Amino acid sequence: MERSIRERVPPLLTDLYQFTMAYAYWRAGRHQEPAVFELFFRDNPFGGGFSLFSGLHDCLLFLRSFRFTDEDVEYLRSVLPPDSDPTFFQFLRGLDCSGVTVNSVPEGTVVFARVPLMEVAGPLAVVQLLETSLLCLVNYASLVCSNAARFRLAAGPRRKLLEMGLRRAQGPDGGLTASRYTHIGGFDLTSNVQAGFLFGIPVAGTMAHSYVTSFSSLEEVWPQTLVAANGNRDQVDLISLTKGWLGRVCDLLGAEPGKIREGELAAFLSYAIAYPHNFLPVIDSYSVSCSGLPNFCAVALALCELGYRPRGVRLDSGDLCRQSVNVRLRCWAIDTVGVGTHLVTCTSQPSLGCVYKLVEVRGRPRMKFSEDPEKTTVPGRKAVYRLLDTEGHPFLDLLCLAVEPPPKAGLPLNCYPLGWDNASHSVTPAQVICLRQDVFTKGQVTHPLCSAAETRAKVQSSLQTLHPRHKRLQEPDSYTVSLLYTRTRCY
Amino acid sequence: MERSIRERVPPLLTDLYQFTMAYAYWRAGRHQEPAVFELFFRDNPFGGGFSLFSGLHDCLLFLRSFRFTDEDVEYLRSVLPPDSDPTFFQFLRGLDCSGVTVNSVPEGTVVFARVPLMEVAGPLAVVQLLETSLLCLVNYASLVCSNAARFRLAAGPRRKLLEMGLRRAQGPDGGLTASRYTHIGGFDLTSNVQAGFLFGIPVAGTMAHSYVTSFSSLEEVWPQTLVAANGNRDQVDLISLTKGWLGRVCDLLGAEPGKIREGELAAFLSYAIAYPHNFLPVIDSYSVSCSGLPNFCAVALALCELGYRPRGVRLDSGDLCRQSVNVRLRCWAIDTVGVGTHLVTCTSQPSLGCVYKLVEVRGRPRMKFSEDPEKTTVPGRKAVYRLLDTEGHPFLDLLCLAVEPPPKAGLPLNCYPLGWDNASHSVTPAQVICLRQDVFTKGQVTHPLCSAAETRAKVQSSLQTLHPRHKRLQEPDSYTVSLLYTRTRCY
Repeated sequence: MERSIRERVPPLLTDLYQFTMAYAYWRAGRHQEPAVFELFFRDNPFGGGFSLFSGLHDCLLFLRSFRFTDEDVEYLRSVLPPDSDPTFFQFLRGLDCSGVTVNSVPEGTVVFARVPLMEVAGPLAVVQLLETSLLCLVNYASLVCSNAARFRLAAGPRRKLLEMGLRRAQGPDGGLTASRYTHIGGFDLTSNVQAGFLFGIPVAGTMAHSYVTSFSSLEEVWPQTLVAANGNRDQVDLISLTKGWLGRVCDLLGAEPGKIREGELAAFLSYAIAYPHNFLPVIDSYSVSCSGLPNFCAVALALCELGYRPRGVRLDSGDLCRQSVNVRLRCWAIDTVGVGTHLVTCTSQPSLGCVYKLVEVRGRPRMKFSEDPEKTTVPGRKAVYRLLDTEGHPFLDLLCLAVEPPPKAGLPLNCYPLGWDNASHSVTPAQVICLRQDVFTKGQVTHPLCSAAETRAKVQSSLQTLHPRHKRLQEPDSYTVSLLYTRTRCY
Repeated sequence: MERSIRERVPPLLTDLYQFTMAYAYWRAGRHQEPAVFELFFRDNPFGGGFSLFSGLHDCLLFLRSFRFTDEDVEYLRSVLPPDSDPTFFQFLRGLDCSGVTVNSVPEGTVVFARVPLMEVAGPLAVVQLLETSLLCLVNYASLVCSNAARFRLAAGPRRKLLEMGLRRAQGPDGGLTASRYTHIGGFDLTSNVQAGFLFGIPVAGTMAHSYVTSFSSLEEVWPQTLVAANGNRDQVDLISLTKGWLGRVCDLLGAEPGKIREGELAAFLSYAIAYPHNFLPVIDSYSVSCSGLPNFCAVALALCELGYRPRGVRLDSGDLCRQSVNVRLRCWAIDTVGVGTHLVTCTSQPSLGCVYKLVEVRGRPRMKFSEDPEKTTVPGRKAVYRLLDTEGHPFLDLLCLAVEPPPKAGLPLNCYPLGWDNASHSVTPAQVICLRQDVFTKGQVTHPLCSAAETRAKVQSSLQTLHPRHKRLQEPDSYTVSLLYTRTRCY
């Protein structure tokens, strides 16, 4: 994992303008000026009340190995204007992140729009060069992790969730990224075998329609016999046994024997003989009620007679809701839901829109004004606190200047909400948490890298503390993000 | 390029059910049965009238190197049910694509919904295993290439198009895939330096707002002088020269000198001194009309006085349309448009939905019936012809059974359109093109692999022949895809 990430995030994986700017800074002698950037997003995704912060682990591996090879530098020389000073390329060759410090929200934390999630400080030219790669690593990871967490909230804690979006992702590695971060966001299983191999995510899968439609008659079933689960070595003819059950099942379900698909029955039998302990066929290749369900029940009952426990059915297309009610009422409870396209492409909002904004240079606050007031940035280096109420629910994220004293539990403070409701008001936190921590200092990862399993647990524990009114999937209550309000300063 | 693709599409990059099905086929002795799958999509993307077929090159590299390592097989043994027959894993270890044949539409061709783009024939277990990887390689490549082609149609042939979506793509490699296939679809430039390095796509970029906001006064401009373009070695004070122009520009544009941002002017001057031949600043960090545009004009005029030719301005946010009209009317024509998020995420439809359906086993046609009639497949191995009218425009794609004689130019034929308008009708093509070709036979690539440049040219030439009524971005006329209608057969 670590090796593959490092290989695929070379320092050239960034926008060219980072280099043209770095050159201009260098040319003006400003490249070593201490600068601070903040990474944040402006709106919670999917019309929801929260997001999850992901991708930090990959960012830290990227920062740790950030270095240009001779080949990289030669390529850059070929694409920057020919009148560029050649000494600049020597400067690039020696560059690394030994002067960079990152203060970040821990990966897997519930976060909100406009809260600076990462603060990246270091020499102006270097921290500028990092922009696109960090955004690329955080944006989709956080988006798809948040999407997965919303599916988890909708499904409840018990049902298994299976990610199966590889074929609709942005190429092979888009698919791997999706598998990794949906697992972190709360999915249990993936269909992506390579993701299982690389990241240790449990894999699952049974059969496609092509398997079912590849059979046309019971003559294709081979072998036709199965031994009982109890170890008795007598071979039992599963076809005869199943045929016996099929008649009774058709009577019971009111299915017409003439509409039963023989090829489908052959496919189910063949699969049951190959995997008697794992019988879980797809039952909607033809008609669920006329053929798929009766065929499944007959094979399942035959397996039961031999002491095996069938696992269930798979519904893949058509009106899943109606069919699943139908199937569930008749024989089974739904315990696994697979999601593909909508999960990995985040159809309703396919990008998070994290940005990376300069807030300080040489100790002086910097700010971008915009004709779009939503895009005006809050200047200056900040500390970020999460305020909790007496029940332990977070109710407000507070941005202070780094130099201001931290808020204290039990003491009232005046704050000024960002966004639409701009009246200052007083709040009294029952508990105050410092939301970010130093994770990278002078070229070294200073906080233990979390495993995916740890981050996955963190997602659920972080979501657990959030009040249900912010977790509603539709029209949640807005969570408040505020600036500390002082008499001497007003944004 | 070739190496990196091969490394990132290992044969485990697929869904687990491909292996459970392969095992069941193998267990039933059916794994070597000759089978034929077709790859197609059901709807043209973005509500448009066409799509572009991309990703074939990557598919061929994948097929050529398809082989399981010992490590792969050991992993598979650990995730398949423990009662799986161990001989199956020896079978996997010896597997490759030497029995596989692919007949495909050439990459970069304009294609339509429901036309089988690739036909993959070979041993049942092998061609089943290929499904997810082929879909993953074709789906997003074709989608984003089609999206790029639509932007190209909207922009007209002359304007330069710049892809800049890396930060919003599905991780690092999603970004590389996007850069590669948007270039093939008609974009000229990318901001993604690694894509330039790996694929030879021309790169472009100038500066971000952070560069502008990092400056606060003219004192930060260093050096302050520039020599003239004509080689005269006298250093000219660019600040003084620009200040002189600024007064006149403010008069002319009706801008208030008091609203001019000194930091922005410093940033522009510093950039102009670093890149006198490539002056193209972002002018909307503060206010375009009050500060950005006057500052740009003043620096640009000073550069002109020294014999340099400024390149233009960059508009990044806000009401681009209004601002660009404003800027264009006053001084400049728009010649490059950069697109990020909407291009790479394909916001309006973030997945293409290609599918891979079994159409024949052991020479017998196979078909999936569905409760959703749109999802019922057309059985049997097919030949695909494109019929052209007397003006050389394609007007109908014809699916015949492979055994049927091909249609002939000048002779009428009866056909039966797929989809809503199901009345058979007669057409007479002026020209008939066989749409697919053999590209992979018995483990070998049999058609020269096209370079990205060749495929990019193919996209434009293929689009060129398409009638404008099918190319309209909104509400295009539907292109007809039909089955050959014979008296003895009717679907």
